[in-house]
Amino acid sequence: MSEVTKNLMLFTGRSNPVLAAKIAELLKVDLGGITTKSFANGEIYARFALSVRNSDLFLIQSISAWSDGSVNDALMELLIMTDAAKRASAHTVTAVITHFGYSRQDKKSAAREPITAKLVANMLTVAGVDRVITIDLHQGQIQGFFDKPVNHLTALPIFANYFVSKGLENLCIVSPDVGRAKAAKKLADMLDADLAVMHKSRPAHNVAEIAHVIGDVAGKTCILNDDMIDTGGTIAACVTTLKKEGAADVYICATHGLFSGRAYEYLDKVDVTEIIVCDTVPIPPDLLTGKLNVVSVAPLLAQAIGNVFEGISVSELFDPDFAL
Amino acid sequence: MSEVTKNLMLFTGRSNPVLAAKIAELLKVDLGGITTKSFANGEIYARFALSVRNSDLFLIQSISAWSDGSVNDALMELLIMTDAAKRASAHTVTAVITHFGYSRQDKKSAAREPITAKLVANMLTVAGVDRVITIDLHQGQIQGFFDKPVNHLTALPIFANYFVSKGLENLCIVSPDVGRAKAAKKLADMLDADLAVMHKSRPAHNVAEIAHVIGDVAGKTCILNDDMIDTGGTIAACVTTLKKEGAADVYICATHGLFSGRAYEYLDKVDVTEIIVCDTVPIPPDLLTGKLNVVSVAPLLAQAIGNVFEGISVSELFDPDFAL
Amino acid sequence: MSEVTKNLMLFTGRSNPVLAAKIAELLKVDLGGITTKSFANGEIYARFALSVRNSDLFLIQSISAWSDGSVNDALMELLIMTDAAKRASAHTVTAVITHFGYSRQDKKSAAREPITAKLVANMLTVAGVDRVITIDLHQGQIQGFFDKPVNHLTALPIFANYFVSKGLENLCIVSPDVGRAKAAKKLADMLDADLAVMHKSRPAHNVAEIAHVIGDVAGKTCILNDDMIDTGGTIAACVTTLKKEGAADVYICATHGLFSGRAYEYLDKVDVTEIIVCDTVPIPPDLLTGKLNVVSVAPLLAQAIGNVFEGISVSELFDPDFAL
Amino acid sequence: MSEVTKNLMLFTGRSNPVLAAKIAELLKVDLGGITTKSFANGEIYARFALSVRNSDLFLIQSISAWSDGSVNDALMELLIMTDAAKRASAHTVTAVITHFGYSRQDKKSAAREPITAKLVANMLTVAGVDRVITIDLHQGQIQGFFDKPVNHLTALPIFANYFVSKGLENLCIVSPDVGRAKAAKKLADMLDADLAVMHKSRPAHNVAEIAHVIGDVAGKTCILNDDMIDTGGTIAACVTTLKKEGAADVYICATHGLFSGRAYEYLDKVDVTEIIVCDTVPIPPDLLTGKLNVVSVAPLLAQAIGNVFEGISVSELFDPDFAL
Amino acid sequence: MSEVTKNLMLFTGRSNPVLAAKIAELLKVDLGGITTKSFANGEIYARFALSVRNSDLFLIQSISAWSDGSVNDALMELLIMTDAAKRASAHTVTAVITHFGYSRQDKKSAAREPITAKLVANMLTVAGVDRVITIDLHQGQIQGFFDKPVNHLTALPIFANYFVSKGLENLCIVSPDVGRAKAAKKLADMLDADLAVMHKSRPAHNVAEIAHVIGDVAGKTCILNDDMIDTGGTIAACVTTLKKEGAADVYICATHGLFSGRAYEYLDKVDVTEIIVCDTVPIPPDLLTGKLNVVSVAPLLAQAIGNVFEGISVSELFDPDFAL
Amino acid sequence: MSEVTKNLMLFTGRSNPVLAAKIAELLKVDLGGITTKSFANGEIYARFALSVRNSDLFLIQSISAWSDGSVNDALMELLIMTDAAKRASAHTVTAVITHFGYSRQDKKSAAREPITAKLVANMLTVAGVDRVITIDLHQGQIQGFFDKPVNHLTALPIFANYFVSKGLENLCIVSPDVGRAKAAKKLADMLDADLAVMHKSRPAHNVAEIAHVIGDVAGKTCILNDDMIDTGGTIAACVTTLKKEGAADVYICATHGLFSGRAYEYLDKVDVTEIIVCDTVPIPPDLLTGKLNVVSVAPLLAQAIGNVFEGISVSELFDPDFAL
Repeated sequence: MSEVTKNLMLFTGRSNPVLAAKIAELLKVDLGGITTKSFANGEIYARFALSVRNSDLFLIQSISAWSDGSVNDALMELLIMTDAAKRASAHTVTAVITHFGYSRQDKKSAAREPITAKLVANMLTVAGVDRVITIDLHQGQIQGFFDKPVNHLTALPIFANYFVSKGLENLCIVSPDVGRAKAAKKLADMLDADLAVMHKSRPAHNVAEIAHVIGDVAGKTCILNDDMIDTGGTIAACVTTLKKEGAADVYICATHGLFSGRAYEYLDKVDVTEIIVCDTVPIPPDLLTGKLNVVSVAPLLAQAIGNVFEGISVSELFDPDFAL
Repeated sequence: MSEVTKNLMLFTGRSNPVLAAKIAELLKVDLGGITTKSFANGEIYARFALSVRNSDLFLIQSISAWSDGSVNDALMELLIMTDAAKRASAHTVTAVITHFGYSRQDKKSAAREPITAKLVANMLTVAGVDRVITIDLHQGQIQGFFDKPVNHLTALPIFANYFVSKGLENLCIVSPDVGRAKAAKKLADMLDADLAVMHKSRPAHNVAEIAHVIGDVAGKTCILNDDMIDTGGTIAACVTTLKKEGAADVYICATHGLFSGRAYEYLDKVDVTEIIVCDTVPIPPDLLTGKLNVVSVAPLLAQAIGNVFEGISVSELFDPDFAL
Repeated sequence: MSEVTKNLMLFTGRSNPVLAAKIAELLKVDLGGITTKSFANGEIYARFALSVRNSDLFLIQSISAWSDGSVNDALMELLIMTDAAKRASAHTVTAVITHFGYSRQDKKSAAREPITAKLVANMLTVAGVDRVITIDLHQGQIQGFFDKPVNHLTALPIFANYFVSKGLENLCIVSPDVGRAKAAKKLADMLDADLAVMHKSRPAHNVAEIAHVIGDVAGKTCILNDDMIDTGGTIAACVTTLKKEGAADVYICATHGLFSGRAYEYLDKVDVTEIIVCDTVPIPPDLLTGKLNVVSVAPLLAQAIGNVFEGISVSELFDPDFAL
Repeated sequence: MSEVTKNLMLFTGRSNPVLAAKIAELLKVDLGGITTKSFANGEIYARFALSVRNSDLFLIQSISAWSDGSVNDALMELLIMTDAAKRASAHTVTAVITHFGYSRQDKKSAAREPITAKLVANMLTVAGVDRVITIDLHQGQIQGFFDKPVNHLTALPIFANYFVSKGLENLCIVSPDVGRAKAAKKLADMLDADLAVMHKSRPAHNVAEIAHVIGDVAGKTCILNDDMIDTGGTIAACVTTLKKEGAADVYICATHGLFSGRAYEYLDKVDVTEIIVCDTVPIPPDLLTGKLNVVSVAPLLAQAIGNVFEGISVSELFDPDFAL
Repeated sequence: MSEVTKNLMLFTGRSNPVLAAKIAELLKVDLGGITTKSFANGEIYARFALSVRNSDLFLIQSISAWSDGSVNDALMELLIMTDAAKRASAHTVTAVITHFGYSRQDKKSAAREPITAKLVANMLTVAGVDRVITIDLHQGQIQGFFDKPVNHLTALPIFANYFVSKGLENLCIVSPDVGRAKAAKKLADMLDADLAVMHKSRPAHNVAEIAHVIGDVAGKTCILNDDMIDTGGTIAACVTTLKKEGAADVYICATHGLFSGRAYEYLDKVDVTEIIVCDTVPIPPDLLTGKLNVVSVAPLLAQAIGNVFEGISVSELFDPDFAL
Repeated sequence: MSEVTKNLMLFTGRSNPVLAAKIAELLKVDLGGITTKSFANGEIYARFALSVRNSDLFLIQSISAWSDGSVNDALMELLIMTDAAKRASAHTVTAVITHFGYSRQDKKSAAREPITAKLVANMLTVAGVDRVITIDLHQGQIQGFFDKPVNHLTALPIFANYFVSKGLENLCIVSPDVGRAKAAKKLADMLDADLAVMHKSRPAHNVAEIAHVIGDVAGKTCILNDDMIDTGGTIAACVTTLKKEGAADVYICATHGLFSGRAYEYLDKVDVTEIIVCDTVPIPPDLLTGKLNVVSVAPLLAQAIGNVFEGISVSELFDPDFAL
């Protein structure tokens, strides 16, 4: 008979190692040694350098493309790391998914479509993931795609903090479309700000869509909030419309800065004062010279990981009052 | 060697037999014989009267309270019918869930909460349901709670049809809260109407919430749209606010008319021109004498069931153009 | 590296809180804080008040109707509590099911019937229950409906103790039907008593059933034993027959006193000396003024829970010698 | 597009080929070609001789020892045949288990015991069995060990038929122990006979058990009924007791004649008029010269198989009126 | 009641459309319409153009990199197509995996490694694949990673045919390493050729490995056979060694021509007469100008697909006599 | 709150108790008390003598015939022990399978065959095994048949040690067929020996097979290595061929000495110097008087069990350098 002890081990895949390093520093642990590589044919290989037996593993990965791999490579790497961990008798595997790729494909909006977010959830489960920690899913319902515990954190308090610290006034939080109105409302409440919602309509067939703003934005400092900036087209058009409607200044804040394709170029051309994203997806340093600023989710994730490991509730991290 | 044939059988539980009878009539089939009853101690018993072997069964049930049972009784009856069907070698069991109870508990909005909608999905799966047909879930993402095919229909085109037939003008579709803005937008597009979104805020601690409308409703014929009318409190307050903001007329349309507690009383007191709900949940006939009207989803469900059985795509039923 | 500790937490649903409180007192722990309620539409909601992370949870519930809910409400509440517990990272969830509703529907006795007891077992498993502790199932085989550990306790020694303490003599244990003969035999052995078995037959079609007693009861103090008193009709008829056959006194003991419908009235009219049931199902206090007495299973359950938590064998609790 | 056809194929393992041949003859199909053999080291190998793709397979096997193998060999052979069938794309596999070995280990009667009947059910399920047809399980609850359809047939009507045809009078059906009282009661009802139940007690520690009969057997033609004759010790002792209590004649009928060890010898020595068993387990021909007679379940199984394949209800086969 | 019909539908992903088109032509069916694309952020989307309800789908994909995607992109596309098919109620989904990527990671050869081939098998299963058809897995045991039917075909008879048609004499089949000896032996038997096996050893630490040939190759026409040509390094070294040992001519045949990195360059430099690969992985046309020739597996796959659909055994396709 | 402790318990089935006793001695623990027996009808029963709750159980069993049971009896006994352990709340169950019967049936080599090794893996999983420790599987890929951790050990270093200690020179390791070449190569590397591979061919139909040796064996001390000696026919023929080809001496080493049928007789007749097997399968003592010697795997298994329990990596045990 001997006592059972527990041991936290933190590992990173290759898609967001900078954030992983920050988290490790905050938790005062070293990132665990692991070999992850792609063979010449593109197959991925992972092997833990040391025993992980009976340890509680936290695998940090963004399911998104990075300099050397696609979004699917990032997903597969996470799955392979998990498989290796389970076969090496890790006690638990927590996937810390800083950006949950495919989260927009969360329901069928047309016949014969997949629900890829559920497929990804099932893949993580079948690989052996015991828990997921993630931030700002496209819809919170994705939690229910899992039968395992999911800690769904939000960066909204971080953004609220950031804007409070800037001392902006006469604020109006703007949702870029009707689907995002709920999150915009939450941010508005945190900042005691007004709310506006944008939507598009097509007056007639073969006529271009027109953007509308409901709510008054004239003369206000507008903050457009979205879960991610992908190709940037929609959000750039929103900026233009807001300025046309008389907005004094327009800020954009979005948790996940994917900046796919020529997104940054588009955004650079419109009259936006500042763009704030988190480091859930790595931002190429050369983009950081202009209007773009990054706020880190490392403290949020470090605290979530620490609480999960120590058996303390993570719920306070959901609370807007926590960060403000 | 003999040819394999297929056979459609339609059964109803006890929570919405009137709608089931309408569907059967439209499909020109008889409702199958089944004994469903509650014993004195409340346990439910179900037994099919005739062989269901190798048939494709469609079990119609609203997961909601009815005159003799609670929402949980309705759910349990559906599960027990499914268990009996599978053990009696039904080829497939499709649950036609006219109102999907617990659909609002679809994510954790506070720590240590259940995700009961996922639990219900898992219960249906473990009982042996092969497919779900349902209408206007609180969030479409619930489809992804299942690994089985789900046909998620919407009553929005039925409502659009109804309002078109009334010849109303100067319309503004109003979402009662930020979370429902997307559906309101769809209805607005179908009716070529304006859009407004309501939300609440609390100016200070210990001060009552104030309702806001973003978008212009003054002088307009407003149609408040929601997925369900439950206790009716929120929607009644919305009517009052809209009238205060100068709305000419206010209509309410909601797919599921639960009218829990004293909901109808509340709504009867406010200045609403008409309330339109579907028959997904049975409406007590005595409520139908006043402002309340019911439009039937029986044609929609009958066509969905027929298409599923015949192997024809159900996708056209998703299409707003279908019903208009 | 830190040591792993374990923590027992005890919660109750709403169907048998009095028994839960007794168990908590015996275990010298407080019942954990939990919100369980029914919304106006009957949907049930549960939320744990404090962190349950890594704790061993024991959820006490009778799957039977109570003052405010049906048997299905009680079952659903237990499942929802379990779902919330698993998503909140409870280490283990043990369902302490004081009365296992639907346990009589444990096999198909006619074609196209469900096996609802198996369905309930599967529902508990899919919700995340790790272990079941229960008492006097209709048939012990229900243990095998689970792949999880089940501790199947029996109240027979409690009854034996009770009758020993009364100093009754010339005892004959009577099984009310052939299916219960095995349990009656066990009780007879504990009390060193005679055994009799009752059954019914129908001499001809359209002729009323006649009750038979095999074994000699004339002049004896008879104890009818059953697993539950539901509508009470059968057991009341047994009393009458026994008296007709010359029984000196008739006692009834049954673990689960459901007293559905007018059961108590029926039993009050027949010549029974005393009715003894356990508190596995709450007994309305107004019934306790007459022939009805309650013996508590709280010590049995408290010891079982304590042993499970401490890792001590529960087997001694199966042993008739334990309680006598 | 082409029509889907269905095709019945019947195969036998090595534990009861004689019964399988009779069933095939009644169904007017040939037993399918299959190689089943044991290698020198005892490993079993099975291979279907012809394509089974898309066919409905019925695999006939008794889970009991035969001339060349143990009960476990018989079980393993059935599982291996199933695995081969599923990997060869059989449409469905129905296990026709003429004797369900391990069915007595259906619950824990002591701590730290297995529930081997559930283990066997899980093994059949994991190997790919879609349906089970079986006869006279030790307890009908074993049906609920499966989530697949189970057709649980009974040989009681066959026995009733047999005794009716013999024209015996003054009958008393005797259950050899309290656990079998329910089946004895059913047979008594079929034959309009009296009922008696036997049990044993031990007056004091270290004193031999005494057998008791409850119910009157003096001068009657007693029929002892059990689900199986295994070592024969208990049933032989019952015969002796019945004769001592004045029984005129004693017959034994039991569905499964295992006759393990020296069972037949024991039974040959006691004063039993006739022993009737079914051919669910093969009876060595040399035993058939004396008091032992066999009645065949082949017609019952052939009809069940035919009905299952044709999609006709099997329920009539449960009905005692069917065979009488 | 109506007859059930079946319908074959063939679809291709983007990794090997040329082979898919050949198979479709041979089967005289059109490739089904499907949208498959990568969004700007690399997420893959798939949607079937027409109803697939109740049809038997065959999805052709090579799990290997192609001009626009990585091996993981190819895998993910196949999974997403499968998910969409199952949710659109396809009757069955057969994955026709022309090259099964990750098949070399089929066991742990060091501690803390994954078994990625099993992970891939589980991913295919969880996505809903009902059957796999594939060619020349690294080890046939991968069949057992699935509980679904797997048709494992081999190109060896195609190679044998090819070399027979060339009329080569004095043949020796050479396995490039000890692990491939079994396949080389099979090819040797088909061609009535000699056999040789190569292996490497390191005479001392820090000394270069030396290649050995066991078996006599001097003066012979050697055919090196492998399952795949990946980086080409090993096989190129084998050619050099064989020539050094006096081989007259050296041919290489391998089922899967991955030619990762600079593989073709390496092989172009060594003294090899001809390299023959199959079209299981698309070969860039510019490589086909030199020593490299391609033989097609389209007839083999077309026949396997046709047989599976028609319910005819695929076993003959395993038989070396079939193709020769 | 109390600390969680862990407790190792070691049990043995009946197929290899001598090896189990050696392992227990090396681990300095007592073999746990367990009743395992076969009833007269061959059904197996197992019951743990003492509480196993929360303990880590290691169940030692060879899946092979022993003096009183068949290979299937041994498998079933292991499964039943596992079922009893899980239902008695063992924390983990590790099956220490000293010989993994059915491991040769690891893929379909003909149509309509089972993959029995996968079936066995699924049976172990469904019974509740958490981990497998085993030695020298026929193919290492069987690891991937499990989703649970498998520690696959090898006896090759033990054999290498043994031959080193004998001081033999001029060694050539011979693989008896092409499929075993990889293992022979490993042993050759450990002993710095030459390598030869044997195979058979049939020059024409109806002509006897001829054995070939590739590689030079004349004048050398040959060591034939195989994973098991079953009927012994092939390996005996290999000895004869090697001697014909001029081998000076021939040794045989094989991990699993099944010696089925008349295997030992065959081997006794050929000119083999010594046969070395492990004690993974019990060797009848009367065989040990001649050329046959046994080396024990007890130290290897004891260390693996100890490391698994202590949470130390088992990987070093894979390393050939470990034992040499």
